[in-house]
Amino acid sequence: MPRLVLGIEYDGTAYSGWQAQHHAPSVQAAVEGAIAEIAQHSVSITASGRTDAGVHALAQVVHCDVQVERPLRAWVRGVNAHLPPDIGVRWAQTVHAQFDARRSAQSRRYRYILCAQPTRPVLHRHRVGWTYKPLAVAPMQQAASCLMGEHDFSSFRAAGCQAKHPVRRIQSLSVSAAQPFIHIDIEANAFIHHMVRNIVGTLIPIGAGERPVEWLAEVLAACDRTQAGITAAASGLYLVGARYPASDGLPDLPPPPSFAC
Amino acid sequence: MPRLVLGIEYDGTAYSGWQAQHHAPSVQAAVEGAIAEIAQHSVSITASGRTDAGVHALAQVVHCDVQVERPLRAWVRGVNAHLPPDIGVRWAQTVHAQFDARRSAQSRRYRYILCAQPTRPVLHRHRVGWTYKPLAVAPMQQAASCLMGEHDFSSFRAAGCQAKHPVRRIQSLSVSAAQPFIHIDIEANAFIHHMVRNIVGTLIPIGAGERPVEWLAEVLAACDRTQAGITAAASGLYLVGARYPASDGLPDLPPPPSFAC
Repeated sequence: MPRLVLGIEYDGTAYSGWQAQHHAPSVQAAVEGAIAEIAQHSVSITASGRTDAGVHALAQVVHCDVQVERPLRAWVRGVNAHLPPDIGVRWAQTVHAQFDARRSAQSRRYRYILCAQPTRPVLHRHRVGWTYKPLAVAPMQQAASCLMGEHDFSSFRAAGCQAKHPVRRIQSLSVSAAQPFIHIDIEANAFIHHMVRNIVGTLIPIGAGERPVEWLAEVLAACDRTQAGITAAASGLYLVGARYPASDGLPDLPPPPSFAC
Repeated sequence: MPRLVLGIEYDGTAYSGWQAQHHAPSVQAAVEGAIAEIAQHSVSITASGRTDAGVHALAQVVHCDVQVERPLRAWVRGVNAHLPPDIGVRWAQTVHAQFDARRSAQSRRYRYILCAQPTRPVLHRHRVGWTYKPLAVAPMQQAASCLMGEHDFSSFRAAGCQAKHPVRRIQSLSVSAAQPFIHIDIEANAFIHHMVRNIVGTLIPIGAGERPVEWLAEVLAACDRTQAGITAAASGLYLVGARYPASDGLPDLPPPPSFAC
């Protein structure tokens, strides 16, 4: 019976996060319920990674095993018909039985969109993080370069993080301006809890000129969460997608989200 | 006592439209209530134009007379503190007593964002109109050119339109692609009710190849609403702003909204 892989887009605003929980609505539970409607049996899905409450995804990759054969469009349109408007299937494929959305992923890519303007964002209020401070991108870019490669990211690790160890390898990291927005793009083999949001929260005072460029390297070296900045708001964070071996034949990562104005 | 002009951004999703109504929440009522909190007296505001239920604005221009002197930042930050998250003041200025946000406006500019992709949009669901049909932009562009200049737009006029006559002058009109989005930008001296959404609804079958390029000119010439296409969804329509004589010294129109991905 086929192993299915799906790319899931969601607006995390109304959810307690990706992972199914007894007391709160989760994206995982909504997707499992909708797939079950088409499969006509209960299913359990595995995702490339968890996302927190309020965090969005462009193409969260999930796999599950189903006991029925259906055309691929049924796994897209059919499942979509059973999903709420804030969750949607972008694509579906079948894949070999050894594929695992979590274990097979070589890297995950996130974008954080920061809106730096005097007045609070209105149209994009659930899609960006906001600071009223003017930010200079160049020092943020310069500072961020120290995070490239493999490091102990304990300084950017949430208190409740369940990862076995705090070492991760950042493969690409860029800070770029699209006024009034700033894009922070990070791809890593994996992420610890709140890692992107804590990095963004530490870049903000550097961009605002309140901390020197060197501060980020000092925070990283300290391996101490109390040294870093705030945790930036979940609303600005997007899981863009996950990368798998080319031989698995999955779609490319989607372009990262951006707004003008 | 000063005449104030404000630029108001709003997410129209939750409102029955711009205009104050007894039975439903309106943007106008929310803004008047918030200004009254700072002015400490009731105010009545006049806008550059009304927008319908679900239609957004980047910089709706409004004026009102207040009986108190306050620093301009109080009319921005103070009023914002009394507005809900889906409405915000972008800027405030004082202006001469003859200025009128409606009568002084030389033109209004709208953008419609159409999302043409097989699956329904998720993250942008309240910010775009959607069609599952692939659309070709070139025939839409070519067709739209017949609308430039002064015409009787009766074919694109809502049944309940309260305008005195159906003649309007379109000063600029463009259809451009930013895959999977299509932007329809229209600036005119004024608009009749549902004019942009009915034009967009008539361009869709042309882009989909279901109607020839010449069809739009035929619909226009018919001066008959039953000849045109559907009314495109309100969610994709943005009032970008209104243009006033340079001597009034108001801020430029903001850039129109756009999304990537």
